[in-house]
This record gives sequence, structure tokens and C-alpha cells, in this order.
Amino acid sequence: MAATTRIARTAWEGNLAHGSGTVTFASSGIGDYPVSWAARAAEPDGMTSPEELIAAAHSACFAMALAHSLTQAGTPPRRLETQAEVTFQPSAGITGIHLMVIGDVPGLNTAKFTKAATDAKDGCPVSQALAGTTITLTASLE
Amino acid sequence: MAATTRIARTAWEGNLAHGSGTVTFASSGIGDYPVSWAARAAEPDGMTSPEELIAAAHSACFAMALAHSLTQAGTPPRRLETQAEVTFQPSAGITGIHLMVIGDVPGLNTAKFTKAATDAKDGCPVSQALAGTTITLTASLE
Repeated sequence: MAATTRIARTAWEGNLAHGSGTVTFASSGIGDYPVSWAARAAEPDGMTSPEELIAAAHSACFAMALAHSLTQAGTPPRRLETQAEVTFQPSAGITGIHLMVIGDVPGLNTAKFTKAATDAKDGCPVSQALAGTTITLTASLE
Repeated sequence: MAATTRIARTAWEGNLAHGSGTVTFASSGIGDYPVSWAARAAEPDGMTSPEELIAAAHSACFAMALAHSLTQAGTPPRRLETQAEVTFQPSAGITGIHLMVIGDVPGLNTAKFTKAATDAKDGCPVSQALAGTTITLTASLE
């Protein structure tokens, strides 16, 4: 398969503390969203942030990787509910990401599901790119 | 400053090739967005993807880091336009991220702006977390 590229942009005005930005999803066109330092380092206040966007990317990539490996193993999932929780410490950076998954997978026991989820945590493209932080996992079947 | 956490979720149904998912931005509440393998590995077709979400996170984090360092150096930006382009190769993963920035920064020359942008590329929290891929940069002043 050919490589794909995806593009997003941020327009930022002013300094970090009092300035503000707008994130544009250029490839999909799904919209423009405000960001600010306060919404990142304190309460979200209805705004997204780099960490929430990383969480969104990671939860989606992890779900796709796990759906793929379960299907290849002959036990395709009916449903996977994934979550990523990204922790940000100003001056220390992104200190950890906790993945969670609850699966509805006919014919699979918990041990095999946990193994598949661990492999997807380690191997999914977003996990591989995020080699600079610590990724943990909780997995369970419905 | 205290650490913050940001959460996003994906609900996925079915296998990778023909299934589909919905990404929910849980911390901000900005919405639910569909994702699919086809929209990731072929044309976006109006859908976001892990790579576009990484691009959004990176463009925003890079803009904030650069706004901060320029302000600390006594030359706060009027405006920074950042872009992240994330390349995904199925089976190889996220093979590279190209950052671009165009700055409107009173009193700064191109060499100093390029140096500040390079430092922000290397040091911003999202770049630090994305240690598993290659990040490049083009920087210019308006």
C-alpha cells in the first residue's frame, strides 16, 4: 500500500500565557478548534489540547491494531471500546499514557484477549511513534 | 504546576478492513468523529485519522513551545502559523513528521527565528513523546 499523509495546522497569536490558537484539521475538514495554554495546563473548559488530540489518535490506532490482530487470529471483535488517558506535567512533558480496552469478542478468553491487547499496545503505529513516553494498559472482556 | 490528564475514547465495531469507529473527545466535549481504515490508508473522505490527530497535537504543541521561547527571549510573536504533515506507511508505521512554521515576530531576524523554531521542534512535549519517528522542520518569517 502507498504511504498517506495527513495535515493539520495551528494559527497562534501572542505569547504562551495570554495568547490563543486555532487548530485546523486540514485533511479531513472536520473543523477548527480553539486551544490555549490555560486549557492545556489547567481545566479544559470546553477546549481540546495536544494531550487530548494524542489521546484521540492513540485510542483510534490501538482499536484498529487490536481489531486487525483479533481478526487475523480467527476471532474478530464485535466491539472494542478503547480509551487513552494522557498525563501532562508542565516542564516534564507527557509523562505517561494509560490505555484501556473493553472487548466484546466471541470465542475468546480473557488471557488471550489480554495478550492480543498487549501486543496491540506495543505494536500499533502510534505506540511505536510515541517511544518517548511510558504506555500502560488495562484490558478486559465484557 | 500540577499534572493534567486528558481523555479520548474510540468505539470500534467489526474487523479492520470493513469495520468502523467513532472517536470521542471526552475531556473537551468537542464532539464525536468517525474513523475507518480506508480513511486512514487511502483517501480521508471527510474523516479524521490517527495521523491527522497526531498532526493536530503536534502543530499546537510546537506553536505553544515556540511562542513561549520567543517571549522568554524578549521577542514575543505577533502570530505563528504552524503545520504538521504526518506520513503513514501501512506495515512500516508513522515514518515521519514534517513541521512548518511561518512567523510574524517583530524585531527578530531569520537566523534567530530558525534557531528558536529548531529548539521548539526538538524540545516541545509532543516532539519528546514522539521519539520513535523522524521530525523535520522548515521555518521562515513573514
